[in-house]
Amino acid sequence: MDEASRSDNPRQGGVGPDLLIHGGTLLSMVKGEKPLVNAVLSIKDGRIEKIGVDEDFTGPKYRHGERIDASRGIILPGLVNAHTHTAMTLFRGYADDLPLRQWLFEKIFPLEAEVLNPITVYAGALLGCLEMIASGTTCFMDGYFFQDDTVRATHEAGLRALIAQGIIDFPAPGVPNPQENLNVARDFLEKWKGFSDLIQPGLFCHSPVTCSRNTLERALEISLEGPAPLQIHVSETLEEVQTLMEKTERRPVRYLHDIGLLNSRLVAAHAIHLDDEEMQLLAQHKVKVVHVPESNMKLSSGIAPVRKMMEAGIEVGIGTDGSASNNDLDLFLEMDTAAKLGKVSAMDPVCLNAREVLRMATAGGASLLGFENEIGTLEEGKRADIIVVDLDAPHLQPLYDPYSTLVYSASGADVKDVIVNGRMLMKNRIFVTLDPEEIIGKVKEITGDFGVSTL
Amino acid sequence: MDEASRSDNPRQGGVGPDLLIHGGTLLSMVKGEKPLVNAVLSIKDGRIEKIGVDEDFTGPKYRHGERIDASRGIILPGLVNAHTHTAMTLFRGYADDLPLRQWLFEKIFPLEAEVLNPITVYAGALLGCLEMIASGTTCFMDGYFFQDDTVRATHEAGLRALIAQGIIDFPAPGVPNPQENLNVARDFLEKWKGFSDLIQPGLFCHSPVTCSRNTLERALEISLEGPAPLQIHVSETLEEVQTLMEKTERRPVRYLHDIGLLNSRLVAAHAIHLDDEEMQLLAQHKVKVVHVPESNMKLSSGIAPVRKMMEAGIEVGIGTDGSASNNDLDLFLEMDTAAKLGKVSAMDPVCLNAREVLRMATAGGASLLGFENEIGTLEEGKRADIIVVDLDAPHLQPLYDPYSTLVYSASGADVKDVIVNGRMLMKNRIFVTLDPEEIIGKVKEITGDFGVSTL
Repeated sequence: MDEASRSDNPRQGGVGPDLLIHGGTLLSMVKGEKPLVNAVLSIKDGRIEKIGVDEDFTGPKYRHGERIDASRGIILPGLVNAHTHTAMTLFRGYADDLPLRQWLFEKIFPLEAEVLNPITVYAGALLGCLEMIASGTTCFMDGYFFQDDTVRATHEAGLRALIAQGIIDFPAPGVPNPQENLNVARDFLEKWKGFSDLIQPGLFCHSPVTCSRNTLERALEISLEGPAPLQIHVSETLEEVQTLMEKTERRPVRYLHDIGLLNSRLVAAHAIHLDDEEMQLLAQHKVKVVHVPESNMKLSSGIAPVRKMMEAGIEVGIGTDGSASNNDLDLFLEMDTAAKLGKVSAMDPVCLNAREVLRMATAGGASLLGFENEIGTLEEGKRADIIVVDLDAPHLQPLYDPYSTLVYSASGADVKDVIVNGRMLMKNRIFVTLDPEEIIGKVKEITGDFGVSTL
Repeated sequence: MDEASRSDNPRQGGVGPDLLIHGGTLLSMVKGEKPLVNAVLSIKDGRIEKIGVDEDFTGPKYRHGERIDASRGIILPGLVNAHTHTAMTLFRGYADDLPLRQWLFEKIFPLEAEVLNPITVYAGALLGCLEMIASGTTCFMDGYFFQDDTVRATHEAGLRALIAQGIIDFPAPGVPNPQENLNVARDFLEKWKGFSDLIQPGLFCHSPVTCSRNTLERALEISLEGPAPLQIHVSETLEEVQTLMEKTERRPVRYLHDIGLLNSRLVAAHAIHLDDEEMQLLAQHKVKVVHVPESNMKLSSGIAPVRKMMEAGIEVGIGTDGSASNNDLDLFLEMDTAAKLGKVSAMDPVCLNAREVLRMATAGGASLLGFENEIGTLEEGKRADIIVVDLDAPHLQPLYDPYSTLVYSASGADVKDVIVNGRMLMKNRIFVTLDPEEIIGKVKEITGDFGVSTL
């Protein structure tokens, strides 16, 4: 451990740990490591100081610090939502059971154009952060507009995130002139660079169809100046593939390859409609992929070939998409769906097992964001982004295999404690950083003004 | 209202209602009826006495009785789980990520043979009832063995159910001699006939492959003597179809038709692999079908053609299957999956909308059990099987459309109150009829003795 980095700030408990989690079954999510029963984990200065069992924590210094009883639970890395549009909580349930094109162009885009502004995005992002904390997500990758306000909300929540400014060659919320979209994006990166250890600014190109070749090339250029990967929706719908074929005679991934966009700093969300060549191109160029199963099902976009991608060596994370197409940000439910959809689509119940899917939502996601050295597994020295799942509920008993229990039986509502960077964000299901009543009240007020309820 | 049926028992509040639910948005699930905002519903002698708004409930008699505040919630019919094996909670997470055949013949059947007995089935069924109450299921259709003990547990829980004795032409738990399987089944029907208004005994043939023609024919005969439908697993796997083709040169539904089994009192669970002729046969003979999407996905059995079946006029309900293949009994999550899987498998996001799916889990299920005149919708005179879902959670806000919120955003954990036959089984998430600590403790003790944990 790095002794020099320890703070003597008495608020953090002096020589002892700041926080001690004890008694649960710990899943480190390190490859090859088995569950550790009756685990103890200490946290100091935002990092995991030590992992062990009772007898490793007998010194007097371990009498200090706050304690979390995990004896009826599972301790695991906080989940990473690798693709979402957080403030879209505002539109949860506003337009369902519609085709993607109609949903997007007739419902979501027009309402966004009408109602999005710094105040509404801030409120929607706060609600999204609240929901993520409540369901055990400690880190997320976001792409949207008015992102200054998503940064503000995330900072207030205490979550870790890569927050990206949306880039699209149409008038967009906060970017009425598309010719300014790259300047706005560059300003966004500049503004938030170094603002917080927990929040990294990034760029998000809407898709190879809605962004021109020039926009994509320049966005990559700007993106490569900083540490954050570039996000893009790729091959989400057959219509996208067809449109691009008509425009460029190439399928989306082939097209992105030919214009030089494929590299290890590109994160492709969806990646549903791929031919074998495209799969190979993604693998060769170490492009990372976010699997977004529930949104893809709900919008009938298709089923991503996750097993094939993993077999090709592509790093795959998992995301919920925005709440308008899911309609929640609960990664536990998304893991369950990912495993089951993977099995039935391959007609092979062995594929995408519980541990693999949990890896996608922890270490996998961390790697997509470029945060793999800091989070995604529970290891001494890593950032303390940790959740405790309470097993004391009828649907979580009996316990034979903790991976199975988490993926197939648990939901976000079973998360008891949430810690990010060593700081408690939820303790015994009580929010520490955010006021749920105030946030929900504000969102009700704002969305009530939209005047679109079906009631 | 039927004045004569009102009890003057003071315990039930004399002339006033026994229970009054007020302030929520009520979804009656009656075809064509819209959500009723700020609803009030009164319950008397186990039935819904009156549904209206505040001004319909001004008389002095409405000052009596217990009250449930639903002002932040949705009031809807209790959910009906149309296919489960309740006591299989004992095996939740015991064997995952395996092919159905290996899962069933190498894992589940051998462990069942070893550990099932009246004590273990009773404990597992109590855990299942606890889980169903906790997630808003008020009625279920069960098929398993040692069913006397599932009846006992269900009676103790206060749930409504059709509980069926399993019939299979192999030695089975509690039925070591398969030649006795029909006698055991007949005795079961005889024993529990008239035992309770809430529990109806029935028969459950395992499948057209594991039951002989004679067994199927006689089971139907016995079944038709009573009011309960006959349950059977049909066309769950391609292997089943192939085996039957080899044995009889007919696909499962065609075979069942030819031996005279298809009729309006048959409930077919799964119904995945159907050709057009089989679909027509099911529709013609008014056979009812249970859609079991999560289990079918997890075991890679396939995807049932739900939309086609509904278009053919087949009544479809929804079930979770046992906890060993799901791994929970949460119908809210099952509805979400049913809608999304229906959309993506048809590549049509309009199909299986939220309201249709909620209907499957309420009125649809009630019809499958033959209980459609008593439950499944909220109407004056019907049995008071009612749940209240609390909307005061980040993932349930904002509210544009209550059907969407329930199907796409809610989980069982959002259910606040559960009423069956006018009796509270859960109030503000506190169990009234069952003791969760005792039940979970007992199940841990029992399953600990199995000695099969991976920890």
